[in-house]
Amino acid sequence: MSAGWFRRRFLPGEPLPAPRPPGPRASPVPYRRPRFLRGSSSSPSPGAADASRRPDSRPVRSPARGRTLPWNAGYAEIINAEKSEFNEDQAACGKLCIRRCEFGAEEEWLTLCPEEFLTGHYWALFDGHGGPAAAILAANTLHSCLRRQLEAVVEGLVASQPPMHLNGRCICPSDPQFVEEKGIRAEDLVIGALESAFQECDEVIGRELEASGQVGGCTALVAVSLQGKLYVANAGDSRAILVRRDEIRPLSFEFTPETERQRIQQLAFVYPELLAGEFTRLEFPRRLKGDDLGQKVLFRDHHMSGWSYKRVEKSDLKYPLIHGQGRQARLLGTLAVSRGLGDHQLRVLDTNIQLKPFLLSVPQVTVLDVGQLELQEDDVVVMATDGLWDVLSNEQVAWLVRSFLPGNQEDPHRFLKLAQMLIHSTQGKEDSPTEEGQVSYDDVSVFVIPLHSQGQESSGH
Amino acid sequence: MSAGWFRRRFLPGEPLPAPRPPGPRASPVPYRRPRFLRGSSSSPSPGAADASRRPDSRPVRSPARGRTLPWNAGYAEIINAEKSEFNEDQAACGKLCIRRCEFGAEEEWLTLCPEEFLTGHYWALFDGHGGPAAAILAANTLHSCLRRQLEAVVEGLVASQPPMHLNGRCICPSDPQFVEEKGIRAEDLVIGALESAFQECDEVIGRELEASGQVGGCTALVAVSLQGKLYVANAGDSRAILVRRDEIRPLSFEFTPETERQRIQQLAFVYPELLAGEFTRLEFPRRLKGDDLGQKVLFRDHHMSGWSYKRVEKSDLKYPLIHGQGRQARLLGTLAVSRGLGDHQLRVLDTNIQLKPFLLSVPQVTVLDVGQLELQEDDVVVMATDGLWDVLSNEQVAWLVRSFLPGNQEDPHRFLKLAQMLIHSTQGKEDSPTEEGQVSYDDVSVFVIPLHSQGQESSGH
Repeated sequence: MSAGWFRRRFLPGEPLPAPRPPGPRASPVPYRRPRFLRGSSSSPSPGAADASRRPDSRPVRSPARGRTLPWNAGYAEIINAEKSEFNEDQAACGKLCIRRCEFGAEEEWLTLCPEEFLTGHYWALFDGHGGPAAAILAANTLHSCLRRQLEAVVEGLVASQPPMHLNGRCICPSDPQFVEEKGIRAEDLVIGALESAFQECDEVIGRELEASGQVGGCTALVAVSLQGKLYVANAGDSRAILVRRDEIRPLSFEFTPETERQRIQQLAFVYPELLAGEFTRLEFPRRLKGDDLGQKVLFRDHHMSGWSYKRVEKSDLKYPLIHGQGRQARLLGTLAVSRGLGDHQLRVLDTNIQLKPFLLSVPQVTVLDVGQLELQEDDVVVMATDGLWDVLSNEQVAWLVRSFLPGNQEDPHRFLKLAQMLIHSTQGKEDSPTEEGQVSYDDVSVFVIPLHSQGQESSGH
Repeated sequence: MSAGWFRRRFLPGEPLPAPRPPGPRASPVPYRRPRFLRGSSSSPSPGAADASRRPDSRPVRSPARGRTLPWNAGYAEIINAEKSEFNEDQAACGKLCIRRCEFGAEEEWLTLCPEEFLTGHYWALFDGHGGPAAAILAANTLHSCLRRQLEAVVEGLVASQPPMHLNGRCICPSDPQFVEEKGIRAEDLVIGALESAFQECDEVIGRELEASGQVGGCTALVAVSLQGKLYVANAGDSRAILVRRDEIRPLSFEFTPETERQRIQQLAFVYPELLAGEFTRLEFPRRLKGDDLGQKVLFRDHHMSGWSYKRVEKSDLKYPLIHGQGRQARLLGTLAVSRGLGDHQLRVLDTNIQLKPFLLSVPQVTVLDVGQLELQEDDVVVMATDGLWDVLSNEQVAWLVRSFLPGNQEDPHRFLKLAQMLIHSTQGKEDSPTEEGQVSYDDVSVFVIPLHSQGQESSGH
C-alpha cells in the first residue's frame, strides 16, 4: 500500500482509477455455521421451557461429541436475541501445515513438497457487522492467507536466526551481526506473517464482496501455536486471556474508537477532507449545542492525552468524529470498532463519507512463550467475542474456569462443557457470577484452549 | 495547529507565508549555567591530579552548600569531554505559584490576585544539541508557560471534578454526568496543561532563535508536584525513575527514532514529499547496496511490528529514514531524539529536508500518586540526562541509592552528595558499579528528589 494509493482511493480531487467493466455478478456468499459444528445438535439453555427466542432460551451450539478440535479445545456459541436474522459471529480452527520452499543455487525455485514441514494449530473468531458475509469469508480464507505468508518465510523460521537474505546468501559478511543487533528473531517473522495475512485477507474480502454485491465487515481474533509459542493476533473488540491458578494475563487489547482515539484524530488532522466538513475531529464530553457557543468547554485533540478547555466556535457544533462512551462509542456515528476486515464500501448514512480510511486491518500480536510457562493441568486460554466480555469480566471468567476445571480433570469433554458454561453465564442464569445475572443480547462465541501437554505437539519438524 | 498550517509550513508547492521583513536582529541568547549554581564552586572529581579535560578529571558542579533546592533535592552536573565548548545540558527548579482567576456573573474577568492560590514545585532538565541556546531558553521559559497554562484551568483543578464549562455554568443538567462518564479528573487538566506548556515553549524557542539568528534544539524532562501528585513529563531521551527499598519504577519513556519508528514511518507514508526522494521510509537491518538488488531481504514498514522479506528495488538503496541501532540510531541521518523543543530550522546536511515535521514537542506524562505510596525515608526520584543512563542501568542507580542513603539519614546534604556520587559513577571510577568502570563522555546532569514528608507541602491551598 502506498500513500499514492491511499490518496487516489480516499481523497476527493485525485484522479480515480478507471471503473472495472461490469462483469457477471458472483453469487452471494452463502450463510453457514462453522464447519466443525456439522452434525451437532443445538441444546437449549438449561431450564428453558420453550424454543422461543427469549434471551434465556436461545439454543447453545457446540461441536458434536465425537468431533475433537485441536488440543481438545472446547467451543460453544449462541445467537443474539433477534438483533439480526443470522448469527454474525463465525469461527474456524484446524491444523496449520506449513510446507517448505526450497531454493536452487542460482535461481529461486519452489518445491511444493507434499509432506508438511512445520505444523501449527489455529483457532479464530470473527464477529461480523452489516451482515454475515465478511465474517464467513474471513473464516473461509484467513488461515490460507496465513499458511501462504508463513510458507513464504519458512526458511527464516527454522534458522537459528532469520537470515538477512531469504535465500541464505550472505552478501555482506556482517549481515548476521546486523540482524542480531536489531534483535530480529524467528517470532518476528511469525508476527510479520500474521500482519501480512490479515491485510491479504482484507483485500480478498473487499474483492469478493464487491463481486457479489454484498457488504459488511468483521473483527478477527486469531490464536496460532507454532514452534512452542502461542501467537494471539487481534483486530477488533474480541478478547483472549490466559487463565492460570494464580494469574490472569490479557493476551489481546481491544481496538475501538475510544482506544484508538489519537490515531483516528491524527488521520483527520492530516486529511481533513475525509470528514467532508460534516464532522469535528475534536473530542468533547458531550455533543455541543448552540448554547455552548462562546463558552470555554473541556476538549481533547489528537496530540493530547490530558484534557484542556477551548472556547466553542461554530465548527465545534458539528457531529464528533468519535462520539459516545464505552459500548456506545462510535466512529463517525457508525461503527463500534476501529480495526477489522472488510467494510470497503461502508459510508456514513446519507453521505459519501467513507469509514475505511479510519479502519486498520493490521492486528496487534501478543506472543506467549508456552515452553517457559511450567504449565499446570488447568491452564487455559479463553477467547471470546465481545458479547461475552460485555457481561463477564476477566476475573469472573477466571472464577468460572477455576471453579469448574479442577473437579473435572477426568472428563474428556471438560473444555467443551466449560465453553458452554461460559455461554450460559451470559444469559442471566441464577448461578451466573455476573451482578444481577446480566444478559448478553449479542452473538457470543467462545473457545477454551487447554495448554497443558500440548506445547510440544507443535514444535517438531 | 491545523493541517493547513502543517501543509503550508512543510510541504513543497503550497503557497508560503510572506517572509517577515528583516528587522533589527535580537541579541543572541547568552550562555549560562543554571541560576541555582550561582556562587557554587566546581569540585574536581576525587583523585583528579590536574584540571585538564581528561574524562576522569572534569569538575563536578553542585549548588553552594547554603542554597537549598525545593524539597532539599540534590543536584550535580559535569560537562562533556570536549564534545562541545559549552555544557549543553541545562536545569531549572523552583516553587510554582498558581494564582486564581475569578469570574464575574456575566462576563469573564481576571483578578491577578497577588497571593498564590495553589503551590507546586518544579524540577527540569534540558539536554541541548546543535548549540546551547534552545536548552537555555527552555530553562528560562518552560516554567512560565506551565504556570500560565495551569492558571488558565485552575478553577477546574480545585473542583471535585473538572466542570464541563470553565466558568462553572451548567448549560445541560447532565454535564457533570458526561464528565464523569469520560472519567475526566483534575489530574487530566494538569496533564493537558503540561502538554500545552511544552508546545507553547516550543513556539517561543522557535521565535526567539529565529530573531537572534541562532539554531538548536533540546530534550525536556520535567517533574512537577501539585496537590499531592508528582507529574513527570518527558520529550526526548532523558529519564526519571522512582527508587524505593523494594521497587524501581520507570517514570518516563525515551523517545528516539527507534522507539517512535512507526509514528515516523507513518508520517513519511502519508507525506512522501517530506523525504524529497532522498530517503527510503523502510527499515532494513543495514543500509542496502547494489549487490542486494533483486534479493529478498528483511524489512519493516510503518504498519508492521514484526518483520518480513521484500525483493529489493532501486529505491530501497536510498539512505533510510531511520538508520543505525541503539545509541547510534539517527532520524534522517541527523538527530538521535524524536521529541523535544526547538530545531525549527534544522535541515539534513546539504539538503532542504526539514527535521521538524518528524519531531513532536508534546511530552508523555506519567502521574505518581505520592499520597498513596506509604513513603519511606529513602524513597527518591532520580532524574538525569542520557549521559548518565548511557553507562548506568536503572538497577545500578538504585543500588547506589540504596547503598548510600540508609547510612546517612542525619546528613542534611545527603541528596546533594548522592547526586555527586551518581555523576562520579559515570566517570569510570574504580568504585563505580558499572562494568569495567564505563565512562560517559557526554554532558551529565542529575536531580535526586526525596519524596518522604514532602507530599503534603504541595497539597494545601
